[in-house]
Amino acid sequence: MNESSLPSLWVALVHYPVINKRGDTIASAITNLDLHDIARAGRTYGVRGFFVVTPVADQHALAKEIIGHWTDGHGAAYNPDRRDALSEIRVVDAISDAAAAVEALAGSRPETVATCARYCRGAVSHAAFSRMVRAGRPYLMLFGTAWGLSKGVIEGADHVLAPIRGDTDYNHLSVRSAVSILLDRLLGRRETA
Amino acid sequence: MNESSLPSLWVALVHYPVINKRGDTIASAITNLDLHDIARAGRTYGVRGFFVVTPVADQHALAKEIIGHWTDGHGAAYNPDRRDALSEIRVVDAISDAAAAVEALAGSRPETVATCARYCRGAVSHAAFSRMVRAGRPYLMLFGTAWGLSKGVIEGADHVLAPIRGDTDYNHLSVRSAVSILLDRLLGRRETA
Repeated sequence: MNESSLPSLWVALVHYPVINKRGDTIASAITNLDLHDIARAGRTYGVRGFFVVTPVADQHALAKEIIGHWTDGHGAAYNPDRRDALSEIRVVDAISDAAAAVEALAGSRPETVATCARYCRGAVSHAAFSRMVRAGRPYLMLFGTAWGLSKGVIEGADHVLAPIRGDTDYNHLSVRSAVSILLDRLLGRRETA
Repeated sequence: MNESSLPSLWVALVHYPVINKRGDTIASAITNLDLHDIARAGRTYGVRGFFVVTPVADQHALAKEIIGHWTDGHGAAYNPDRRDALSEIRVVDAISDAAAAVEALAGSRPETVATCARYCRGAVSHAAFSRMVRAGRPYLMLFGTAWGLSKGVIEGADHVLAPIRGDTDYNHLSVRSAVSILLDRLLGRRETA
């Protein structure tokens, strides 16, 4: 697949509404390396855009400072590859703002796809979602920080994706790992060997 | 696959000898989230052990402080899942020490498998290496921090693995993403859908 025929897949890293260890809905803080790792993985797999979702004004400022260092500051000259990846990040207040931005850019409303470490009834398999994505219409994948997306976000999404499973009973990947693995499963170039 | 039949796969995160942007051999600094993300991915996919390789004494102390916070300190009670993952990290001076530790634990010398973002002649495909791993003998995978493993490490390894490819010409994943994706390709549970 060349870059002009990349699927219309968009990623949102959600900091609100997510849950904490006790299941309470919270707004989480931005983690510097989330932005770096997800931007770089998104760029590697041809994701169309990466949204950082937080309604907290201070966190908008922090995200823009991190991005600015690598897109305008010393980091841009030091590491142009990282500039390319981070320049595609958009910071928005809410998931609905990310969806509206995708609609404006892609020309039609994206279907939202929630991700979760647990299996939800009716969850779409990674193989099935890979075929859906390659069929051409826009999808906005939602990844939760902290202990994951709130129940309301999962129930309100158009689809829920099946969880990632290793071959153990341990299931506590970082969101950075989860995004990377799912993008590889959905869009990675398969070997013929 | 249940946990008693997990393959004998071991991971080393190498901080020396690695290269910087200019290609000089350096010792890189430990990154906190490398330890967390790789330990959690390793535990998810059933890796037998995770070595942090650095000859720098201060860096041993730093690694042990990070690990100790989550295995003995406040973090252990707050997040037992993270304790489980981080308690499996071993800090060693050199790749040869990691190989010796695997030999002592697994009963035979592991073959070393270098990873690299570029394609090397004779590189083993992910599918072929997955079959090798499942055949039972021990393998020690080597991942480089900074700009990657030194030429000497790559040339001295028993095998070199093919690079990860997305469907674009951009190829700058974080080491956290690269480890996660490769473990999923090698050991992830495949869907039937």
